[in-house]
Amino acid sequence: MDRPNRIISDIYTALPRLRAVRSSGAMVTLSDGKQYIDLMNGKGSVTLGHHHPAVNSAITRHLQNKQASASCWSNLHEVLSNRIIGDVGMSDVRLALFSTGTEACRAAVQAARLFTGRHVIASAGYHGWDDYWASSDHLLESNASGVVDFYFVPELLEQVLEQHRGQIALVILSPDYVHLQPNTLRRLAQIAVNERVLLCCDDVKQGYRSMRASQFSAAVGFHADMYTFAKGLSNGHRLSCLMGRSDVMAAAKEFTYTAYFDTIPIVAALATLDYMDSHDGYQRLVQCGATLATGMRDLVQRFELPIMIYGDGPMLQIVAATEELDQALYANCARTGLLLYEGDNQAVSLATGDVLDELLKRFEKGLIATSQQFSRGDPASVSRQRRFKAAFRMMDGASDVVSAGQAIRLIREER
Amino acid sequence: MDRPNRIISDIYTALPRLRAVRSSGAMVTLSDGKQYIDLMNGKGSVTLGHHHPAVNSAITRHLQNKQASASCWSNLHEVLSNRIIGDVGMSDVRLALFSTGTEACRAAVQAARLFTGRHVIASAGYHGWDDYWASSDHLLESNASGVVDFYFVPELLEQVLEQHRGQIALVILSPDYVHLQPNTLRRLAQIAVNERVLLCCDDVKQGYRSMRASQFSAAVGFHADMYTFAKGLSNGHRLSCLMGRSDVMAAAKEFTYTAYFDTIPIVAALATLDYMDSHDGYQRLVQCGATLATGMRDLVQRFELPIMIYGDGPMLQIVAATEELDQALYANCARTGLLLYEGDNQAVSLATGDVLDELLKRFEKGLIATSQQFSRGDPASVSRQRRFKAAFRMMDGASDVVSAGQAIRLIREER
Repeated sequence: MDRPNRIISDIYTALPRLRAVRSSGAMVTLSDGKQYIDLMNGKGSVTLGHHHPAVNSAITRHLQNKQASASCWSNLHEVLSNRIIGDVGMSDVRLALFSTGTEACRAAVQAARLFTGRHVIASAGYHGWDDYWASSDHLLESNASGVVDFYFVPELLEQVLEQHRGQIALVILSPDYVHLQPNTLRRLAQIAVNERVLLCCDDVKQGYRSMRASQFSAAVGFHADMYTFAKGLSNGHRLSCLMGRSDVMAAAKEFTYTAYFDTIPIVAALATLDYMDSHDGYQRLVQCGATLATGMRDLVQRFELPIMIYGDGPMLQIVAATEELDQALYANCARTGLLLYEGDNQAVSLATGDVLDELLKRFEKGLIATSQQFSRGDPASVSRQRRFKAAFRMMDGASDVVSAGQAIRLIREER
Repeated sequence: MDRPNRIISDIYTALPRLRAVRSSGAMVTLSDGKQYIDLMNGKGSVTLGHHHPAVNSAITRHLQNKQASASCWSNLHEVLSNRIIGDVGMSDVRLALFSTGTEACRAAVQAARLFTGRHVIASAGYHGWDDYWASSDHLLESNASGVVDFYFVPELLEQVLEQHRGQIALVILSPDYVHLQPNTLRRLAQIAVNERVLLCCDDVKQGYRSMRASQFSAAVGFHADMYTFAKGLSNGHRLSCLMGRSDVMAAAKEFTYTAYFDTIPIVAALATLDYMDSHDGYQRLVQCGATLATGMRDLVQRFELPIMIYGDGPMLQIVAATEELDQALYANCARTGLLLYEGDNQAVSLATGDVLDELLKRFEKGLIATSQQFSRGDPASVSRQRRFKAAFRMMDGASDVVSAGQAIRLIREER
């Protein structure tokens, strides 16, 4: 077992579920001594590559020069906050720093509740491990924390807003750009705006990945009232933030970035964002993901296996026609030296581009082994229902590959 | 203003409220170019001293050797978790890592609720910024999150447990060793045990300070069911943990240490705990605090100012007879080059010992300036009520310098 046996937290890790000894760029050396190509990349938090020299040397310099202090703010905090705000491009906004996406999303909920004096939260997508996001007993019912899930289904969001008119503090959603059509995201955002409720784009996963800050406003045509960022910020160091309209954020005044100032994640973030900016990072991440997806699709077709590669950007999902095929593929890829995020999104880093050929070779070997275990064409393809279930696992909500009515039936099964 | 103007979080910092440029050992260089002796020490999170070489070189080595990975567990996680569990000395326990004290305390509440199926939390002391700990409208009433405060008053805890018999998921308290008599802590713990409810010792502030892990069991005679640690763990890096009985902690299985593994805080913690162990750290922290307290008391007496220095261990509180005198003293000390945590606890680090003479000289200068502004003997001393209010600010609860009845009256004023 990779998890230390006295630690209780059951964190999902990649097959073959071994511990990391060291890591560099696209590669992770596990406790079996083998070098793996990593497509988990800290669940998408590593965008430059493991132990990237730009980040590591910035931290080392910071320590050598004994900069900043745990007791005080530093100019580094100002530079980073101004930069993020500039990247988002909204005027009259304020920002609060936290350590984790979970904390930033909780802060969004609490700020919205304090600002509006209302309690109900309409939510779609994953926002952290906290009890705020526990499942309710029935669809469209709020859980004990006052959160109702609308699963990215516009019709459900409309119902939630109607049922709780005058009580909604916030609509919060985590955009998906793999399974969800841009038009659906636009409809969802528009419904919130028409109802004049606050809207938070939880960009913990997507932010600072395919472009600086958020692609949300480009996708839907206007800005959310609040944004959360985390994974794209600092190449695997623990940092998150909540940014939003000054009037709303004023309610977050007392939400302390805990008691003290750990400046290493700030330094890591500045180095990460600098590097991404000065090396066409976002564009390269998207291109690398697209090239990888094409390469994987070509291989899958050659072996005539019923496996789909969804996504064309920095995040991909591999979905096989059956659960058994899925499991065999992941196990076989692990044996060839690929770390994959089983059933969830694969995420490239800038370092992935350097090992694309070798990555595809390993994926091919994984496919060869898999094709020897499974007869071709049974089933011939990934069904809509199967795709829906796979997407549900990745986005914690319903993709729009099926009708709203069908989605609601399938959501009831998945819950 | 020291806070970056686009950041909303109103974090309490030391006068003269400037930003840190660099810091080393006991000293912080602020943006005015002056070197300050720091008694805030990251609100007690810096126990070795700022940018301690043992921690900085451990992190630098870790980065140079490109150890561990954001995608996986590492042996470092195992070494640290085993070490903390060994330090506490309970058998059959499990541990979960988090970034902040707030997160660890929230996890304690959620685990206790899931384990017991009960909802009400009886709480004393500070446990973080989160809405869990919001004040209720009336004394002994639970807030919207189901938390009732008993303010360290045994009689109040008894009432809470009686009023909510069969509904209490957890009693959580943050021990104070400056204002609270050990016997009161013992009574509180015994009341929880007699009622057979779960007890969490929130040692975010006191843990790993005057001894390895917790002094709670030595103080009360038995172990709590759960402990939280944070500030003493890693010399100002962001790390916290919840440790507790395996059966209770099993409920925390799904509380992810967010999605990815940032190993720098783990490395910092191992280096910090190693150094403390191998250099008599805890004993030296206590001695340094005691020597400082004695020195400060001598000076205060010499100037015949009505100022008290409470505490004899690593944490102290300076309390003047009036608010005006308090403010003048803090302002004057800031001018002489002392960073103090206004109205709250001063915390020594191991590096404080190296600058004790200079620290006392600066404190003396602060007293000289203050004594020139205030006539002696008016008031002659710190009243009980004044001490109670000061203690309330530091421990978020009632000290036992007054009777329970008086405490309850004063709590109503302070709330």
